[in-house]
Amino acid sequence: MAKVLCVLYDDPIDGYPKSYPRADLPRLERYPDGQTLPTPKAIDFKPGALLGSVSGELGLRKYLEANGHTLVVTSDKDGDNSRLDRELEDAEIVISQPFWPAYMTRERIERAKKLKMIVTAGIGSDHTDLQAAMDRKLTVAEVTYCNSISVAEHVVMMILGLVRNYIPSYQWVVKGGWNIADCAARSYDVEGMQVGTVAAGRIGLAVLRRMKPFDVKLHYTDRHRLPRAVEEEELGLTFHESAAAMVPHCDVVTINCPLHPETEHLFDAKMIGSMKRGAYLINTARGKICDRDAVANALKSGQLAGYAGDVWFPQPAPQDHPWRTMPHHGMTPHISGTSLSAQTRYAAGVREILECYFENRPIRDEYLIVSDGKLAGTGAHSYSAGNATTGSDEAAKFKQ
Amino acid sequence: MAKVLCVLYDDPIDGYPKSYPRADLPRLERYPDGQTLPTPKAIDFKPGALLGSVSGELGLRKYLEANGHTLVVTSDKDGDNSRLDRELEDAEIVISQPFWPAYMTRERIERAKKLKMIVTAGIGSDHTDLQAAMDRKLTVAEVTYCNSISVAEHVVMMILGLVRNYIPSYQWVVKGGWNIADCAARSYDVEGMQVGTVAAGRIGLAVLRRMKPFDVKLHYTDRHRLPRAVEEEELGLTFHESAAAMVPHCDVVTINCPLHPETEHLFDAKMIGSMKRGAYLINTARGKICDRDAVANALKSGQLAGYAGDVWFPQPAPQDHPWRTMPHHGMTPHISGTSLSAQTRYAAGVREILECYFENRPIRDEYLIVSDGKLAGTGAHSYSAGNATTGSDEAAKFKQ
Repeated sequence: MAKVLCVLYDDPIDGYPKSYPRADLPRLERYPDGQTLPTPKAIDFKPGALLGSVSGELGLRKYLEANGHTLVVTSDKDGDNSRLDRELEDAEIVISQPFWPAYMTRERIERAKKLKMIVTAGIGSDHTDLQAAMDRKLTVAEVTYCNSISVAEHVVMMILGLVRNYIPSYQWVVKGGWNIADCAARSYDVEGMQVGTVAAGRIGLAVLRRMKPFDVKLHYTDRHRLPRAVEEEELGLTFHESAAAMVPHCDVVTINCPLHPETEHLFDAKMIGSMKRGAYLINTARGKICDRDAVANALKSGQLAGYAGDVWFPQPAPQDHPWRTMPHHGMTPHISGTSLSAQTRYAAGVREILECYFENRPIRDEYLIVSDGKLAGTGAHSYSAGNATTGSDEAAKFKQ
Repeated sequence: MAKVLCVLYDDPIDGYPKSYPRADLPRLERYPDGQTLPTPKAIDFKPGALLGSVSGELGLRKYLEANGHTLVVTSDKDGDNSRLDRELEDAEIVISQPFWPAYMTRERIERAKKLKMIVTAGIGSDHTDLQAAMDRKLTVAEVTYCNSISVAEHVVMMILGLVRNYIPSYQWVVKGGWNIADCAARSYDVEGMQVGTVAAGRIGLAVLRRMKPFDVKLHYTDRHRLPRAVEEEELGLTFHESAAAMVPHCDVVTINCPLHPETEHLFDAKMIGSMKRGAYLINTARGKICDRDAVANALKSGQLAGYAGDVWFPQPAPQDHPWRTMPHHGMTPHISGTSLSAQTRYAAGVREILECYFENRPIRDEYLIVSDGKLAGTGAHSYSAGNATTGSDEAAKFKQ
């Protein structure tokens, strides 16, 4: 019988929601590429409920306990003597979400003698030292595609919000003024702009498709070239060999690649300095892909007209993280992939992964990042070997 | 020689911008339906400059004075003894923008003995009593299409912002917290939702086209049915005979019709009460199309999950306007159509209209709202006779 350790974020300030804004969710049939949605044998939660918080427990307790397993749920994950550290020793499976990641460093992996599997309830396994996981022959799995469209929607929202100067204009309403000129002096239309994505995987491609009818010129760079029918006929994309080759052409750059050693700090002062003056940068991928201080400095100097995204390093971001206070930002906490719509899919996906694991059935190839000591499935397509967790101990600086 | 009276909004708090976030604007060739952009013989401003404010003067001074005319520019438009009222008596042309409208009531029109033409630098002439203008045989003109795409972009931004709970999540960043659950408990994906527009003219159709790749189900109602190639083949729309017939099916409703006596207060308590519980309402058309208190009450009760838009009545909105403080709103002041991109087009359009007027050439039919004592051009297509300016004296309650 296994011990499953689930690291989840805290409940809302007012406690577990007694009611929700909406009664139900739209019903989706498949993901855009035809992949089926998660297919657990059953679920024990109501679609649209808050599942990613401590009280939500990813809807797993009934299932796990009925099968004789132990479920431990905590939000206490950072600093000395965290519950995560205390419970790790005899845990067989560790589950966490990118929004509130259990940083599975080599040190933690070495201390967790019984550990067999690390699951991301969401997408992105950079909070795990993949090299250490390969060395220990752990399985690393995530719920591929579960919130890709959620993130793509967030990206389009943030592009429009920055270019049109949404939040500062909203603030004029709230403070009782009507200074149209102050709003307008930083407000543009997206129409006609050059928009480029770093990576055109599930999220990047969904962003390109959503931006197409805005009558913008679309650019991309990726390790894998898109099919000609998509690149030329459907979207009229301009392909660039690298991010460095692409960004000087763009008014808007959106980052949609995974974090791995090759993308860590890809957007440093040099890369940002090569962008058009007054460009906009949107990063909903991972905080560490951008150099923290280079972004803040570029906003202060006007090299960037705006920066938005919802990814930080570490997470939660310390109160004194400069991205909280830099000018012209439109940041959110890491939430794009944890809409109630997304939670329903990733809770079902985790359930599917656990059912496979406990019933000795193979986990879907597209969910696998590391298996049998090497990158596998989606991991082999999108990641590089190595470790991108360095510095995660900074998360202990956060106080709510 | 004519006196031209221009009512424009005040300059930014920091004064006329010495620099702008961006050096230039994308160059557009035509509007999406093939209509040409404004074609004045010349312009005396730099595209991308702030033109809609008092210091910007719509770029008209050099041209008007070189031709012997007088230009008076003011932001003082409401209350007793406003500059607008003082200058009106001998003005031949009055120009204002919907964002800072000179309410041309019957009383003002009657006092302006020399008045020949009222021009909207933008779109929407509901701030003019069209019946009074017809009775006096004035010309009423606006710069059709100049900011339709700007507004459509604003609508998509606001749909995404409300559904995904953008601004409250941003506020967690700024106040130093990381309460993911509090953000997520009101956050959904747009994917799969039913989205309907009231009117599918230039703006409404542009919204439908931009929402299409979000994999939503699209609905519309309009006086004029769209061509079958657009309705069925391009967008897969569901047509409804009226707003009342459409809204019960929708998760998101966007209002994109003009204000005239038939649409005034169309969204009252009854109409809003017939919507799905937890629906979102976006109104970038005109504030008076919605009943002020019905909207605020529906947000308080949860009947609406969110309301956004950038139109108010009157404008500027008084400090105590309930839409400034109601829950779950994502309002901006009236700015969607006055992005720097839009200002370039409408300043050029006003210049074109003035050149035609002074050179006795016909003003483009698509710019005409009232001509020769009746609705004409775009006016005949989109408006109804009558008056929708009642209550505009409330604007005098605004203090910056």
